[in-house]
Amino acid sequence: MIKLPSAEEQWKILSRGIVEVLPQEDFLEKLRSGRPLRVKAGFDPTAPDLHVGHTVLIQKLRQFQQLGHQVIFLIGDFTALIGDPTGKNETRKPLSEDEIRRNAETYKSQVFKILDPEKTEVRFNSEWMGAMKADDVVRLAAKYTVARMLERDDFSKRYAEHRPIAIHEFLYPLVQGYDSVALKADVEVGGTDQKFNLIVGRELQKEAGQAPQCVMTVPLLEGLDGVQKMSKSLGNYIGITEPAAEIFGKVMSTSDTLMMRYYELLSDVDPERYEAVREGRVHPKEAKEALAVELAARFHGADAANAALENFRKVFSKGEIPEDVPEREVPRPAGPVWLPKFLHELGLVGGSSEGKRLVQQGGLQIDGVKAAGENHDFGAADEALLRAGKRKFLRVRFR
Amino acid sequence: MIKLPSAEEQWKILSRGIVEVLPQEDFLEKLRSGRPLRVKAGFDPTAPDLHVGHTVLIQKLRQFQQLGHQVIFLIGDFTALIGDPTGKNETRKPLSEDEIRRNAETYKSQVFKILDPEKTEVRFNSEWMGAMKADDVVRLAAKYTVARMLERDDFSKRYAEHRPIAIHEFLYPLVQGYDSVALKADVEVGGTDQKFNLIVGRELQKEAGQAPQCVMTVPLLEGLDGVQKMSKSLGNYIGITEPAAEIFGKVMSTSDTLMMRYYELLSDVDPERYEAVREGRVHPKEAKEALAVELAARFHGADAANAALENFRKVFSKGEIPEDVPEREVPRPAGPVWLPKFLHELGLVGGSSEGKRLVQQGGLQIDGVKAAGENHDFGAADEALLRAGKRKFLRVRFR
Repeated sequence: MIKLPSAEEQWKILSRGIVEVLPQEDFLEKLRSGRPLRVKAGFDPTAPDLHVGHTVLIQKLRQFQQLGHQVIFLIGDFTALIGDPTGKNETRKPLSEDEIRRNAETYKSQVFKILDPEKTEVRFNSEWMGAMKADDVVRLAAKYTVARMLERDDFSKRYAEHRPIAIHEFLYPLVQGYDSVALKADVEVGGTDQKFNLIVGRELQKEAGQAPQCVMTVPLLEGLDGVQKMSKSLGNYIGITEPAAEIFGKVMSTSDTLMMRYYELLSDVDPERYEAVREGRVHPKEAKEALAVELAARFHGADAANAALENFRKVFSKGEIPEDVPEREVPRPAGPVWLPKFLHELGLVGGSSEGKRLVQQGGLQIDGVKAAGENHDFGAADEALLRAGKRKFLRVRFR
Repeated sequence: MIKLPSAEEQWKILSRGIVEVLPQEDFLEKLRSGRPLRVKAGFDPTAPDLHVGHTVLIQKLRQFQQLGHQVIFLIGDFTALIGDPTGKNETRKPLSEDEIRRNAETYKSQVFKILDPEKTEVRFNSEWMGAMKADDVVRLAAKYTVARMLERDDFSKRYAEHRPIAIHEFLYPLVQGYDSVALKADVEVGGTDQKFNLIVGRELQKEAGQAPQCVMTVPLLEGLDGVQKMSKSLGNYIGITEPAAEIFGKVMSTSDTLMMRYYELLSDVDPERYEAVREGRVHPKEAKEALAVELAARFHGADAANAALENFRKVFSKGEIPEDVPEREVPRPAGPVWLPKFLHELGLVGGSSEGKRLVQQGGLQIDGVKAAGENHDFGAADEALLRAGKRKFLRVRFR
């Protein structure tokens, strides 16, 4: 058996960035037992294209894994096979077994950049749910009352607002809870929005005569704007399949506050270094570069990350950038801007069409990174260095 | 194909004594189609010892059957196999398949005194529910909303009173409704307390692309006291396995009003005779005797029924009963009386012990029927003729 670090050392690492762990004393007791814990997290196999917001949870699992615990990556294919049976939710069409298998592979290829595949137990809940008969479901449904289920935030809100809740929606938390019974989980980690379901797992385990799992919740990650949660549709994300230079540049564009938040939730640095950054004993630019290298390396390897760093430094080194780069103050854009018009307004091009061509031909760099499309979100950055073609530089300050 | 009577003739018979049929126009349309309808009624295989209150529904099925329709006697063994999964209801322990099979046989032996076994389709819902997998149940549960389920009287009451409703209880109406889909029912007959569940069947049939069943409800039968519903625990019942003389005597003890109600809900007489009784063109004593013979014959055959009639008449004939039977007025008892004390108070025996012996030795007749036990319920009768031993007669009037 592996010798695990002391419960106190583990707690220092595992408690970083979490919202809560319930019951905390129980969790510490489990850590003190010295036995590798079974740590479960569930994933929906419908959206395999991840951004770093999704990896907050996976980072937490990685910490457990590195401390010697058994991580269980549970793919909730049972519900995905059903989809939305009311047919009202277009985005929840039933998936075929083939699609699920394929999504799961994409998922794994992304997740295993963080988790060690050798040490991860990958499971599908169709394994036990697919074998369940109608009478088993009735018995499962008997374990919880309507009133308690209606206490779940979104249910109580919808009920109060007379928006329909189909009865099968009451079954899903029970299925998720039953997964913990089937897997004999000691801990389940999830987003704060999952708290209710995680607690259902505790209760079903008690009913089944198991020690109930501890419930650990992690927060939703803020996007590059520093305010809204990171999401594809808001455009404020760092995708984990984006090129290394892109990831690097996006991290470098964050404010110091947001950088610290990303350290808390995304970084793997050891507790000492983490404290040093937090207390300002590391220069923010250096800290940001280190984080940018860490994230780029995570998804593209050390070489690509170092190349991104070098490129970034070259662009920003005195030899490449004129000493007297002109500066302009502009109002902070409310969202993504359309670059061709933006460049025209700044006087970098003669008109929108010229701006469009410039972007299309890869002639525009923003903070040393080639602009990928006509729209760009400057996020919460305070300034940006634009380079149009070889020689035209402009530093834009957002006020 | 059988030539069915006209829809109007059928309606005259089928509408007798029902609470409602929904939608009525739709039901008449189905009758007018001239095709034999599939008429479903569901039974719980847990309580096979029936009284005539249970037969109100079965009488209605018999009418359908005699008119040429297909009656389906559905035994809900799926839920009986599960019992009460919360374990809170002692009386709903799960039954074994053997017990269910045995109960079903007892049920059938009693029910087939009314229905024609040759023309009755007996089905068990485990046939389709047992084959259902968990994902089918989820899809079934998606067909109904929580809010609509909470509209059911008993659910809304319990929810308002903060009494627990386990989630599986929401599944049972859906299972019952799905039975109608599986059986392609045209009509479902049930007690008034079943109305909600019967309507769920309509909706699931619509979803499944079937013409929705019509829903017919029959009332709960009043017991011998003429007020409370007939039930074993209240002691105001006529059991269908009781001896013919017992059944006969109990019918003869009813008030004229209750007798009419029993005609409406239990008798098989044709519409003309029924009208004649209702309009008072038949003497109440004759009508009561005819009903008593009909019911005794239904459960014990014509010979036993006629013997009961003869015995009854003999006891009440002048030759047997003295002209000058003494009379006593007593307050109407609130419930069953303990005969030994009652006889003592009336002066028919010297003490309770003597009264006890008399009853035990079969020496007490009430309205010509031997008293079966020490407790007796006079129900709503206005008077009773007591005969203690060979010669002591007393007519008791209740005021």
